[in-house]
Amino acid sequence: MFRWLRRRFLGQGHFARLDAAHFPAFEPGTVWLVGAGPGAPGLISLLGYHALGQADVIVYDALVGGGLLEMANPSAERIYAGKRGGKPSPKQADITLRLVELARGGKKVLRLKGGDPMMFGRGGEEAETLAREGIAFRIVPGITAGVGGLAYAGIPVTHRDTNQAVIFLTGHDEKGGVPQGVDWQAVATAAPVIVMYMAVKHLGSIAEKLIAAGRDPGDRVAIVSNAASPAQSVLEATLAQAGALGERQDIPTPAIVVLGPVSRYREAFDWYRDALKENTLG
Amino acid sequence: MFRWLRRRFLGQGHFARLDAAHFPAFEPGTVWLVGAGPGAPGLISLLGYHALGQADVIVYDALVGGGLLEMANPSAERIYAGKRGGKPSPKQADITLRLVELARGGKKVLRLKGGDPMMFGRGGEEAETLAREGIAFRIVPGITAGVGGLAYAGIPVTHRDTNQAVIFLTGHDEKGGVPQGVDWQAVATAAPVIVMYMAVKHLGSIAEKLIAAGRDPGDRVAIVSNAASPAQSVLEATLAQAGALGERQDIPTPAIVVLGPVSRYREAFDWYRDALKENTLG
Repeated sequence: MFRWLRRRFLGQGHFARLDAAHFPAFEPGTVWLVGAGPGAPGLISLLGYHALGQADVIVYDALVGGGLLEMANPSAERIYAGKRGGKPSPKQADITLRLVELARGGKKVLRLKGGDPMMFGRGGEEAETLAREGIAFRIVPGITAGVGGLAYAGIPVTHRDTNQAVIFLTGHDEKGGVPQGVDWQAVATAAPVIVMYMAVKHLGSIAEKLIAAGRDPGDRVAIVSNAASPAQSVLEATLAQAGALGERQDIPTPAIVVLGPVSRYREAFDWYRDALKENTLG
Repeated sequence: MFRWLRRRFLGQGHFARLDAAHFPAFEPGTVWLVGAGPGAPGLISLLGYHALGQADVIVYDALVGGGLLEMANPSAERIYAGKRGGKPSPKQADITLRLVELARGGKKVLRLKGGDPMMFGRGGEEAETLAREGIAFRIVPGITAGVGGLAYAGIPVTHRDTNQAVIFLTGHDEKGGVPQGVDWQAVATAAPVIVMYMAVKHLGSIAEKLIAAGRDPGDRVAIVSNAASPAQSVLEATLAQAGALGERQDIPTPAIVVLGPVSRYREAFDWYRDALKENTLG
């Protein structure tokens, strides 16, 4: 009891103060598309955490860490809508319709996605349907793995000495193949750094295309698996070697692949050591 | 008193519970490089907010919203290290040395940057110096404006129907000029969507280069100023018109410029309406 009083009055209870803050209201019958961040539960935004406390129902992806769901309103219904990169996703339309039905039923619907909902997260498709069906929604962005996951591996996505541009691309399309919409010839040399999502399955074929298009086979590649979580692991290779790595099929996923000189900073920047990994919050 | 008890025991106090959570310790003599997110204070991560409560000193940028500093430990010293895009930044070395000195003085040093520290935020340079000087640091990523700021303007950074790749680039280099390290010829056509940071000053010259390199002058451009804040405004134009807009010099900054078809979704997705802007948390 006295500890609570002390916290309340002596400037402690740093988080408790937010219970009195005026976060936006989560209205019944609306959908919030929320990014969970790259792994650690501590990387969700305050707004996202607020939504976890308010939601009636949480529709979540495979990429959302378990720790976050434990932080949610205990009485919220949890619905798993998992899909994994590289596999066909025939059920996207079903998931979207489910969101519509739940909102029409007067629920506060939290659609929770790993990373950011709009960065290769198909949040755009869901928003499109919600808009068409006249259901009010809000987007709560998240930290995308291609930025924050790399930071946890000690890799800055940009650095003044290496790159003034960076390309983000997806390594598989909705049918599970190598994306036909990526101009591999052009992206190969358009920026020193290329960050690839869900690219492990087709890494051999992607590396081949990039080298054929003029990318140096000796360029650095880092593969960051289970970023920003205690299970994080990092593999380093050259672009030429990366293809063979992809074929080994034992690289843990989800993984972010980064091509380019920024991974050379990892040696000096590798701050997320084993002792820190014991903390599951981040 | 009874309200506190009720909150404590009836599952309320959603944020208060985090005061008992085991966030990583902010050790004296260390530096945390923290991303504040694109504007709204509610977009900082839980880890970043935790750091705000623990820090002895906060070294912050021009791009950090005032609301966040009000959330910090009241006794923390606040040091402004502001720079604005498009102007020379001779003092980066001084800022970095200041971080080193403060850490050597045994402080818990919070380096707070708008957006994400590693996405054109020069966090990489600061981390490099800290590593060289043997000062322990942690990176707390943030939501970068090129993703989250666009989401607040109703623009998905990717959409299955428009782009499987996106390029992020900076529109000014460290001397304030058009970046010489960007291969404008290549980036012009390498991806349907190009997101540009600090690009308003040189927008005319950039638009010219992109059109000369084969980009359609009729392509959509959106300029999102003061993203994710009550002052947010959005200008839409074609690439050919964008140059003239840049020369008007009355476009509020900071601003994110996005080129490509994704801004067409804005009409349907524009969820961040005036009534919501009244909420300064996000």
